[in-house]
Amino acid sequence: MSSKRPKSEVRFRLRITKGDAIAIGPGKTDLLEAIARTRSLTSAAKELGMSYRRAWLLVDTMNQCFREPVVRTTSGGARGGSTELTETGREVVKRYRHAESAALTGGKRDTDAILGLLR
Amino acid sequence: MSSKRPKSEVRFRLRITKGDAIAIGPGKTDLLEAIARTRSLTSAAKELGMSYRRAWLLVDTMNQCFREPVVRTTSGGARGGSTELTETGREVVKRYRHAESAALTGGKRDTDAILGLLR
Repeated sequence: MSSKRPKSEVRFRLRITKGDAIAIGPGKTDLLEAIARTRSLTSAAKELGMSYRRAWLLVDTMNQCFREPVVRTTSGGARGGSTELTETGREVVKRYRHAESAALTGGKRDTDAILGLLR
Repeated sequence: MSSKRPKSEVRFRLRITKGDAIAIGPGKTDLLEAIARTRSLTSAAKELGMSYRRAWLLVDTMNQCFREPVVRTTSGGARGGSTELTETGREVVKRYRHAESAALTGGKRDTDAILGLLR
């Protein structure tokens, strides 16, 4: 019986908004990580199953929210060149993932209590 | 200039899943709080701008995920009677809100760092 119990999962999703814009959230963080990995906005978008246009818009929003851009394209036009995270971009990803872990740790006492009430 | 800066906000949204179902999340917690306030599923649904059917389905999911029901209807049929949270329901709401606060506290160092990078 116990082996058939569906698995429980606890997740905190962090969003930091600036006015009406989401400066950083789960989707944007995934995108930044994919850009760091692939060094290409086209490849990153493909990896996440989103259009190039959508990926571009997410990056544009972040670049407008932060004092320094989070992504830098070293050469070429909209679809060319090499794309990489700036120092700000890398810092945002690192801090975002740390904040998620710290949230899980901080909330563990209460989320454990809720897990204990589940079937 | 500084007075015109759009306001920043940090939010952790907690979801606890059981298999494919969301046992508890932001919408379900809001619903439980509205039920506690209004003592009526109809009124709670209206307050949150959702259909009665949707509210009923959310409660039904929770009642299936937790060992004890989270909501109890003291008398009457589907649209009648008085509805209130059970002890489990009240505990889930309390722990959920505590967990959110604790997450904010736990992640504060990193979220403050991200806020410091915003315009």
